[in-house]
Amino acid sequence: MTIDFRFLANDSVRSLTPYQPGKPIEEVERELGIHSSIKLASNENPLGPSAAVVQAAQEAAYQAHIYPDGNCYELKQTLAAFLNVQPSQITVGNGSENILELIVKAYLHTNANTIISEYAFLTISLLIHSYGIPVKVIPSIDWGHDIRGMIRAIDDKTKVLFLVNPNNPTGTYTNDDDFRLLMESVPPHVLVVVDEAYSEYITQPDYPHALDYLNQYPNLVITRTFSKIYGLAALRLGYAISSPDIADILNRARLPFNVNSIASKAACAALKDHAHIKNSIAVNQIGKKQLEEGLQAFKLNYISSIGNFITIDVNHAADIYQKLLYQGVIVRPLTAYQMPRHIRVTIGTEAQNTRFLSSLHAVL
Amino acid sequence: MTIDFRFLANDSVRSLTPYQPGKPIEEVERELGIHSSIKLASNENPLGPSAAVVQAAQEAAYQAHIYPDGNCYELKQTLAAFLNVQPSQITVGNGSENILELIVKAYLHTNANTIISEYAFLTISLLIHSYGIPVKVIPSIDWGHDIRGMIRAIDDKTKVLFLVNPNNPTGTYTNDDDFRLLMESVPPHVLVVVDEAYSEYITQPDYPHALDYLNQYPNLVITRTFSKIYGLAALRLGYAISSPDIADILNRARLPFNVNSIASKAACAALKDHAHIKNSIAVNQIGKKQLEEGLQAFKLNYISSIGNFITIDVNHAADIYQKLLYQGVIVRPLTAYQMPRHIRVTIGTEAQNTRFLSSLHAVL
Repeated sequence: MTIDFRFLANDSVRSLTPYQPGKPIEEVERELGIHSSIKLASNENPLGPSAAVVQAAQEAAYQAHIYPDGNCYELKQTLAAFLNVQPSQITVGNGSENILELIVKAYLHTNANTIISEYAFLTISLLIHSYGIPVKVIPSIDWGHDIRGMIRAIDDKTKVLFLVNPNNPTGTYTNDDDFRLLMESVPPHVLVVVDEAYSEYITQPDYPHALDYLNQYPNLVITRTFSKIYGLAALRLGYAISSPDIADILNRARLPFNVNSIASKAACAALKDHAHIKNSIAVNQIGKKQLEEGLQAFKLNYISSIGNFITIDVNHAADIYQKLLYQGVIVRPLTAYQMPRHIRVTIGTEAQNTRFLSSLHAVL
Repeated sequence: MTIDFRFLANDSVRSLTPYQPGKPIEEVERELGIHSSIKLASNENPLGPSAAVVQAAQEAAYQAHIYPDGNCYELKQTLAAFLNVQPSQITVGNGSENILELIVKAYLHTNANTIISEYAFLTISLLIHSYGIPVKVIPSIDWGHDIRGMIRAIDDKTKVLFLVNPNNPTGTYTNDDDFRLLMESVPPHVLVVVDEAYSEYITQPDYPHALDYLNQYPNLVITRTFSKIYGLAALRLGYAISSPDIADILNRARLPFNVNSIASKAACAALKDHAHIKNSIAVNQIGKKQLEEGLQAFKLNYISSIGNFITIDVNHAADIYQKLLYQGVIVRPLTAYQMPRHIRVTIGTEAQNTRFLSSLHAVL
């Protein structure tokens, strides 16, 4: 008898379709035999990490043999000062995805349920499924979260509600009025987890300052990442801000050395380099205008985005994605999101945006 | 009403006592107001990473803003060639602890049980508990695994058996005869997970080559790490070797970017630097002899170890640990292992070993 070790695994894991990450440039070029590609597929900061970050990472490399500080003392102190919260309110993770998994692991079980919006960041749904947790997916309104619908969906078994703000991959956001309504309406024992991976890019005045709600709402958890504006995606570092009680629980659920030392050191340097962040925001604003004007000239519909990416209706996303690949331009088709008409493009430098627009024009 | 968000968490997580890592030197020195300490508490390679590793890590820092290759193509190719297995047999993780967690998450559930030895690496038990999985802890024989006892403990609900070889923190090992007996006796549907974090240090001829059993035993999973002899503890990288079916499942359970890019690049460089590994083994052999002779001169009992550490009976471990701290020598007391008489000391350089021995002599 041959035993199938896939079928000995838990259903929740075996039935998963793994998340399809944006392809690395090297892999695309290897497959297609091309070179000089640009990747606008993963919402990375086109300016890269700041010089101070690179230096901090390189210095840390000499201590590669020493285990990380399991308590992340320096990182938590630096983050707490930056955010004006207490170090005891912070949980660190191997990317914010790790934090999101800790929340699922610590607060959900198969007899509880969780609520998320249609088109919300797919990794969250994958994580929930991987633990076999029931999930209510609330249909979106105009590609964004239907806050009232999410509130209505809460029942006696709901333990966690996820809000992605702004949402990836749609670029839509929940404004302060709706966020206040959400916090006022959710029963106090239900966790509201707000993923703010792109919040540092936001300039809209009605984008909610979720941090300001923490004192009043101990059921609020905010997750953030160093992968986007801070330019540390390669290093894997995310964090949560919450009440100390929730942070205590999440810290029990995590591996003792879940954050590597180079990420910690680089993050501390990144938080201090205000000029790089300011510049990154400016480049993103200019690039968004450039892309929007280009798309309007092509008479293409796109979803209005407040992030560092734009999601565009190109009719046949899989087809356009492939054709762009051969032009050496890597974007993200959104088939996995049941958005077969849409590609998502990261806002790049002026030169990258120009190349994307001309390649898109060529393949349309 | 005040809601306690600790009590809304799952019992399995809330009831955990977090793993107590070895304290970072900076933290110890900050607390005690001392300096020039040495850390022999976490079984790190005292020679550090090789120069080639540092260079690879530093080059990778320039690409800090680019997401890791989610498939770890280059790393898996390099590892597969090094191990003479297929890339499809490899699962990569944020340290081998991450791999161990993937196994628990993917193959265990609350109606199954798992088997582990008394005194086995504590993180595994913590992981199992964090998922609420029943565990049978089999009493040790002479601080080592009782293989026959572990075999007898298998019942209809057993899904995974963990073997730590050599075991941390005792330094004991399961020899090839016992390992063969184990593989022959375990029902074919029960996973045998062999954690080999220290295997690269081993020179004993009767230490089993678990890799050679893989073809015959598709229920075997071997976990290894770059944190020990390769000197990459700060970077977090571990891996599993298994049948492709099990690797497929573990890959579904993992986060898409669980391994950071710097660790991947550094690991590829580390695998190629054979001279550094050879040198690390030699320094460890010489250091072990130095420490053993010193301990014998002090008439102290220690557990014979084949790893890069020695566990010593000092009568009152907590007391000796504290006194050594004030001497600027950081070791690991094994109170968490219910070994209140023992400290574990990492085998260091000749100078570090000399300092440890003289400090130990002073505080005894």
